[in-house]
Amino acid sequence: RMPLVRQSHRHHRPHSRKDRRREREKDSAPVEQGDHCESCNTPSQRVQFILGTEEDEQHVPHDLFTELDEICLKEGEDAEWKETARWLKFEEDVEDGGERWSKPYVATLSLHSLFELRSCLLNGMLLLDVSAGSMEEIADLVLCHPDRCWALEERTRVRVREVLLRKHRHQHERRRNLLPLVRSLEKPAQALSPHPSPSTTEARNGVTPEASTVDLSKVRGMDPDALPVSLGLSLECALCSQAELHFLKKIPIGAEASNVLVGELEFLPQPIVAFIRLTPAVLLSGMTEVPIPTRFLFVLLGPGGKAHRYHEIGRSMATIMTDEVFHDVAYKAKDRADLVAGIDEFLDQVTVLPPGEWDPSIRIEPPKSVPSQEKRKMPGALEDSASHSKPEKHSGPELERTGRLFGGLILDVKRKAPWFWSDFRDGVSLQCLASFLFLYCACMSPVITFGGLLGEATRGHISAMESLLGASMTGVVYSLFAGQPLTILGSTGPVLVFEKILYKFCREHALSYLSLRACIGLWTSFFCVVLVATDASSLVCYITRFTEEAFASLICIIFIYEALEKLNHLRETFPVHMHSELDLLTIYYCKCEPPAHPSNETRSFWATNRINVSSITWENLTVSECRSVHGEFRGPACGHNGPYAPNVLFWCFILFFSTFVLSSLLKTFKTSRYFPTRVRSTVSDFAVFLAIFIMVLIDFMVGIPSPKLHVPHVFKPTRDDRGWLISPIGPNPWWTVLAALIPALLCTILIFMDQQITAVIVNRKEHRLKKGCGYHLDLFMVAVMLGVCSVMGLPWFVAATVLSITHVNSLKVESDCSAPGEQPKFLGIREQRVTGLMIFVLMGCSVFLTSALKFIPMPVLYGVFLYMGVSSLRGIQFFDRLKLFWMPAKHQPDLIYLRHVPLRKVHSFTLIQLLCLVLLWAIKASPAAIVFPMMVLALVFVRKVMELCFSKRELSFLDDLVPESRKKRLDDAKNEAKEQEVTAGL
Amino acid sequence: RMPLVRQSHRHHRPHSRKDRRREREKDSAPVEQGDHCESCNTPSQRVQFILGTEEDEQHVPHDLFTELDEICLKEGEDAEWKETARWLKFEEDVEDGGERWSKPYVATLSLHSLFELRSCLLNGMLLLDVSAGSMEEIADLVLCHPDRCWALEERTRVRVREVLLRKHRHQHERRRNLLPLVRSLEKPAQALSPHPSPSTTEARNGVTPEASTVDLSKVRGMDPDALPVSLGLSLECALCSQAELHFLKKIPIGAEASNVLVGELEFLPQPIVAFIRLTPAVLLSGMTEVPIPTRFLFVLLGPGGKAHRYHEIGRSMATIMTDEVFHDVAYKAKDRADLVAGIDEFLDQVTVLPPGEWDPSIRIEPPKSVPSQEKRKMPGALEDSASHSKPEKHSGPELERTGRLFGGLILDVKRKAPWFWSDFRDGVSLQCLASFLFLYCACMSPVITFGGLLGEATRGHISAMESLLGASMTGVVYSLFAGQPLTILGSTGPVLVFEKILYKFCREHALSYLSLRACIGLWTSFFCVVLVATDASSLVCYITRFTEEAFASLICIIFIYEALEKLNHLRETFPVHMHSELDLLTIYYCKCEPPAHPSNETRSFWATNRINVSSITWENLTVSECRSVHGEFRGPACGHNGPYAPNVLFWCFILFFSTFVLSSLLKTFKTSRYFPTRVRSTVSDFAVFLAIFIMVLIDFMVGIPSPKLHVPHVFKPTRDDRGWLISPIGPNPWWTVLAALIPALLCTILIFMDQQITAVIVNRKEHRLKKGCGYHLDLFMVAVMLGVCSVMGLPWFVAATVLSITHVNSLKVESDCSAPGEQPKFLGIREQRVTGLMIFVLMGCSVFLTSALKFIPMPVLYGVFLYMGVSSLRGIQFFDRLKLFWMPAKHQPDLIYLRHVPLRKVHSFTLIQLLCLVLLWAIKASPAAIVFPMMVLALVFVRKVMELCFSKRELSFLDDLVPESRKKRLDDAKNEAKEQEVTAGL
Repeated sequence: RMPLVRQSHRHHRPHSRKDRRREREKDSAPVEQGDHCESCNTPSQRVQFILGTEEDEQHVPHDLFTELDEICLKEGEDAEWKETARWLKFEEDVEDGGERWSKPYVATLSLHSLFELRSCLLNGMLLLDVSAGSMEEIADLVLCHPDRCWALEERTRVRVREVLLRKHRHQHERRRNLLPLVRSLEKPAQALSPHPSPSTTEARNGVTPEASTVDLSKVRGMDPDALPVSLGLSLECALCSQAELHFLKKIPIGAEASNVLVGELEFLPQPIVAFIRLTPAVLLSGMTEVPIPTRFLFVLLGPGGKAHRYHEIGRSMATIMTDEVFHDVAYKAKDRADLVAGIDEFLDQVTVLPPGEWDPSIRIEPPKSVPSQEKRKMPGALEDSASHSKPEKHSGPELERTGRLFGGLILDVKRKAPWFWSDFRDGVSLQCLASFLFLYCACMSPVITFGGLLGEATRGHISAMESLLGASMTGVVYSLFAGQPLTILGSTGPVLVFEKILYKFCREHALSYLSLRACIGLWTSFFCVVLVATDASSLVCYITRFTEEAFASLICIIFIYEALEKLNHLRETFPVHMHSELDLLTIYYCKCEPPAHPSNETRSFWATNRINVSSITWENLTVSECRSVHGEFRGPACGHNGPYAPNVLFWCFILFFSTFVLSSLLKTFKTSRYFPTRVRSTVSDFAVFLAIFIMVLIDFMVGIPSPKLHVPHVFKPTRDDRGWLISPIGPNPWWTVLAALIPALLCTILIFMDQQITAVIVNRKEHRLKKGCGYHLDLFMVAVMLGVCSVMGLPWFVAATVLSITHVNSLKVESDCSAPGEQPKFLGIREQRVTGLMIFVLMGCSVFLTSALKFIPMPVLYGVFLYMGVSSLRGIQFFDRLKLFWMPAKHQPDLIYLRHVPLRKVHSFTLIQLLCLVLLWAIKASPAAIVFPMMVLALVFVRKVMELCFSKRELSFLDDLVPESRKKRLDDAKNEAKEQEVTAGL
Repeated sequence: RMPLVRQSHRHHRPHSRKDRRREREKDSAPVEQGDHCESCNTPSQRVQFILGTEEDEQHVPHDLFTELDEICLKEGEDAEWKETARWLKFEEDVEDGGERWSKPYVATLSLHSLFELRSCLLNGMLLLDVSAGSMEEIADLVLCHPDRCWALEERTRVRVREVLLRKHRHQHERRRNLLPLVRSLEKPAQALSPHPSPSTTEARNGVTPEASTVDLSKVRGMDPDALPVSLGLSLECALCSQAELHFLKKIPIGAEASNVLVGELEFLPQPIVAFIRLTPAVLLSGMTEVPIPTRFLFVLLGPGGKAHRYHEIGRSMATIMTDEVFHDVAYKAKDRADLVAGIDEFLDQVTVLPPGEWDPSIRIEPPKSVPSQEKRKMPGALEDSASHSKPEKHSGPELERTGRLFGGLILDVKRKAPWFWSDFRDGVSLQCLASFLFLYCACMSPVITFGGLLGEATRGHISAMESLLGASMTGVVYSLFAGQPLTILGSTGPVLVFEKILYKFCREHALSYLSLRACIGLWTSFFCVVLVATDASSLVCYITRFTEEAFASLICIIFIYEALEKLNHLRETFPVHMHSELDLLTIYYCKCEPPAHPSNETRSFWATNRINVSSITWENLTVSECRSVHGEFRGPACGHNGPYAPNVLFWCFILFFSTFVLSSLLKTFKTSRYFPTRVRSTVSDFAVFLAIFIMVLIDFMVGIPSPKLHVPHVFKPTRDDRGWLISPIGPNPWWTVLAALIPALLCTILIFMDQQITAVIVNRKEHRLKKGCGYHLDLFMVAVMLGVCSVMGLPWFVAATVLSITHVNSLKVESDCSAPGEQPKFLGIREQRVTGLMIFVLMGCSVFLTSALKFIPMPVLYGVFLYMGVSSLRGIQFFDRLKLFWMPAKHQPDLIYLRHVPLRKVHSFTLIQLLCLVLLWAIKASPAAIVFPMMVLALVFVRKVMELCFSKRELSFLDDLVPESRKKRLDDAKNEAKEQEVTAGL
């Protein structure tokens, strides 16, 4: 009978008074004692009333571990209780033949069994707050309680009692051929004889509940391997198998057990049902898989032939015991009516799958997240869902304009200063060491790669060596003093583009690149300080996802473009003769000859080394000899710089694509099924490093003279014609110092946007940062170091999005105790300055290890570049939306914005974004390239204009206020589970 | 109230007589009229009774299309009925913001709503077998039926009536800015005024139900684009949009509509509920999305503020209308009690998801298959599940031993002869054309590749040209006369291995390869005929999956090994100088010189071409000139056959891996989300062909002199020293004819196993072949053609597993009318001889197109080989089991055999199989290679011995009787859905 029906349709039922009265009678029929809750009309209200009652010590709900044990006793057979399933949150079954635990899955019950269970609770024996010390006492109570006694023959009663006391065999015990010593000593008699002697009972319960729970809390903190030698262990635990211990660690501290015992006994004429709550909880040794005290016992023994039905009822019982709300009700129930209300309330909340649309035997994978059950416990807790739809603002109090000069900066310093020492204390952790090692590798490759690219773009004025030094200096200072030390500084695409444009400009106008750059850098540094002084960081709120994604896409495309362009460039250096075999002459040479017009340098070289040019038989020199005497190569088989090197081009191709593919494969290794999680995530974390290492090794072994990274062997600037200090004027005319103001303005825009977008992402609310952020302080530190780098002729560094996110993710703290199938809870980020500091200190030390760097082939670095570009694309919604153009509507993923925004609107949004990007790219390539940073800023205005053609609702789905590409993942957490199902179904 | 509870726990409830009586009273309370079924105690029995009643014409259940329309009328607003969801089998929602249909999903209902619905049916107005012609009549009845009248004020009644008659707006109408002409002419008044004139009603229902249903059946057979011009269209249909027509085709012919109308009307004081069954069904124009007659109407109008609850009740109603059993009950119900029994029976069958373990907002993808609901309809229909566990025997009557000479063959001929003409008639279909074109490409590449490989292995004695001719001849004859023309003949790995061993043997013993081969072939042919005569094909039943998988794995490994070995071989042909740049001399040459010891051939060549050797300035010749005068190359820069060709090796590597990756990518394109299904499957079908074509094009454009496939320009044997007829003795001593008997025996084993394993796979029961099979006839045809090929010096051809399966799959016939979300039903295979015949006829014609083949680089063919090997691995369970070694238990997929067999047993089974394979491989590589086929046979005995260490149950899971690798897919159909969810969750 379902009281919940009554409440729901009262208003549209024109029934008579008599009807209604009769119905109320029916409702109250099962309630044996008087209602405690006068105003409760529905099970839901009653449950809320029960949960609201004050807790006495004995009825405080604990976490529960539920175990289903089954027995099937046929005439003439001997049987044991066998564990068949267990629940911490999701169901795990014993795969009988497979001798293993199934994957945790969502327990799909049949409504039929649930109703059978309900009537079991309604009509079975109910023993609340029983104080029993052993299974024997419990068995006696179940069979004949003073209040109620099952009508059984004495012989049957004895046999049932014997069955209840039989040995319990658990899944993990199967493999142990040697049964635990103590147990086998304790119970040999009991397993065979129906009447165990009282003495064995005493022995079995020798361990008091208190002692065992105390020990458990210790056990869980320890390494399973170290356990057998540790002291404070209870007798039970010393016997635990590895599997048992591993599982024990997943059970929350203080958990109690709920044992569901169902079985079919052929000799039984009628079913025996009992629900027992033990007060206090008692450790019934051998009963539960893990040694935790038992609080609840549900016994269902019935006549033969219906084992499956009993099994299903047992599963239903175990599942509702796992339910958050029913579990509380079970702890607090005062009578049968309370329990029945609990089950009715549970029924009222269940989701139903129609029989014709679903196969109940399918095991459903646990969802990523489960809605909170709080609203079931409290009457008015429904506001939760409302907050979901409201877009969250990312401008906290830190971003409010103070109105005072340097007001924001001062507040930032004040906010962060108290945490300064804890930032170092918190860094002492193994996770930080792992994070540091991983990020060192992750940071090294882009610094070197960007350095190499910059070196090619600026003809060695600024190259890998300068890049390393600059990154290290900036990084160390930033890590020590910045507002948000979780941010990782690095080289970024737009800055690279800017530097290339600048270098080209200098060459065309015959200006000294480094000097002009120093001017611009100093001006930029000054402007940035002005921005800090005016609290300009508060403008961040105008940067939406639209702008951020266009910017991020630009970075990705620059990466990919540069990688491919460089590769293509190799074709000029290492030409390949095509269609040539049959026309090739059979003699081909590239002779070494004395230079036709020897330069002054060469002459002086000859003079200093006393080389007699005329005495050399030039033609017999090997290539290296020829080079050593500054000879020249001439002949039909001469390539770029010496004899034509065959095979190099294709080898470069192979290196390039292999690096890319290898990095991608190693990265995705994390989600493969092979090897334990730790191995997989380590490989995945070090993917790029491993890929570089492997490819360098292969290149070294194959020995093809592929182009290598050019670094000086010792610590000195890459070019000999520059030092570590650059004069801002140098050979340039004086007015360039003033003229540099204009490019500096543009550069400021770039630096500001690059820095703040990343900062916003790192400081996101989802990261649950406790030590606060410091946008102004961050920018200030970047500005200072930018000035220093400019004067020293080093590259500029700002916050790098991808690296920063990687850093934050590697420092995530999650609850380690989670039920099988449940996602671990995210607790926060390990906020500290140690990892950042260590990364950049070690990077600084790497400056002296450059002799190892010269083995790195350039195509490998290009491959890493391509990989970084392509892998960053994955997080950007803009590209997901681009893909929609080629997808028929019915194959499109079930994305949240597709549900709420018409497809044509989504497409036009994407097209506008694409147009912006194309324009940006065109400007970058045009003669007006220098205004390119302006155009980045223009994106913000384009976004403003778009509010005219798109409704607010549409924009809220397409363009979150919070400007980050990864937000989606968290936003659609719910959605993702869905999506995956969709994918799986295709 | 749930009567189902009562039945289930009667036995274990010690309640008094009085209790029981009271309960029975309660149960019968809602039933208004007397029970029809005296003996029915449970809803399930009652439903079975109802379904068993005889069908009168008006109550025959039709297919149903259910549509949920909602209205929300707030004070002062104007509103229409809006379609919000529809059901054919699964639910599809209107994504309101997205203006699209959601993906079909499993309707997850809340039990609460279902109970509310139940009470609605219990207390609402029930009008069964109403005869009404228009919505107006229905509205009048709903508001005030002679039997029962809602207590409403007259003003409210009028307003409700007006609401019921409002316009219905459907999802597909949104995009049409121009409303359909007729509708807009018809209803302008109605949309505004609450009282439509009777005349418009007449106009609207101008189309009679009969006319429209007749038309529909025509519409569905036609192309939607051709529709507007076809004649027999009803007025309604002429106005259908494309989307509407597309959907209409999915609705089964003769389907009726069930309209669920729910809404909240602020002015309504109490809810109005009505369930109406119209007899006969009436086309209420504008009501349903597609013009089909309405049979059921469910109306629920309630006071404001509870729209969500009404929506959920509406969904519940629609979902149970979609349920197979309730739907039948709804058609046949005679009174309210029948309907309530129907809903109770539905509730009894539902699956329940606990609230704390599942997020109800997740849309569940429809499962691959749904268990049959027949057992709900018939009392004892439970035998279905029993048949599942019993392994199916694959030896039908065709494989029984007759005991007479050629008995099996004669039976085969008798069985197949009557189908002979239909085999050609059935081939006239578009699907056959597509299948033929696809398989021509799929067959060409292995024939050429194998030919190329064989050519290299036998130094051109048998090469691509012979392979093409042989395949074509054998194929044509086999397609015409074989017992199972769906089988495709091709070259197979083991035969290739055998030929290689034989060639090596002949060279070592200075025997004529082709002649000895002819002897062996003729003997083999003879032995095969003996096998046919003795009905030896019946031995097939001893070949289990174990043997078949070891054999299939061997084939795959041979493919992969050959591909890599050939690639590695290229390193010798095209050496690469490593670590060489700096030591390279600057002059290097490979001069053309007159041969030091000219052979007789060369001398005669010079003589015939009148070349004056001494007058040639050898050093000035180009490579091709040098070759043309039979010069020799000598010098430090000389490679294999002429001057060292740089870049070729790496280019070959690039070609090889690109072909492999491209083939794999194009093949998996089918499962991507981009482009319509047709495009995707076409690309996927032609994947290998496209990959070869693209790579050949690239190779041609780049122009690196990569090694090409060697074929004669005209139709003649590859080598000049052989003809098209080979003497079985030739230059060999006479006793070789007798000695050939021994290798012939071995060869027979190979041919027999290769042929029969494939035949068994093709003839599987799951393919539902109607024209029967012919194992003996198949083998006979293969034997005959083997003899012919041997005498002509062509390769031997037997059934090729992968190609045959591809052929069968390409001819699958599936039901085209399936509800959204439902898998189309497999109807059978288009059995005919035309495709096979056409493939091999065209292949024969290709013999004259060989001048195109010479552009194919060998590395591309090696790449295809690698692809074929790797892609075949995927279907083999043995490799899946191998992977388990590296997988931690908790990451292992939820495979059926892992559930039932302990992991260590699975591992030992895999290890034994691996050992067998390693042994086979070792023998193949050892000097005793010639006994290799014997060892293949030995696998069968190993399997027999294994029955000692594995239980029957374990073997039934690990090693099906049916020996094929793809069985798993169908066996685990249920499992797969599960697995995918598992994967999605990882």
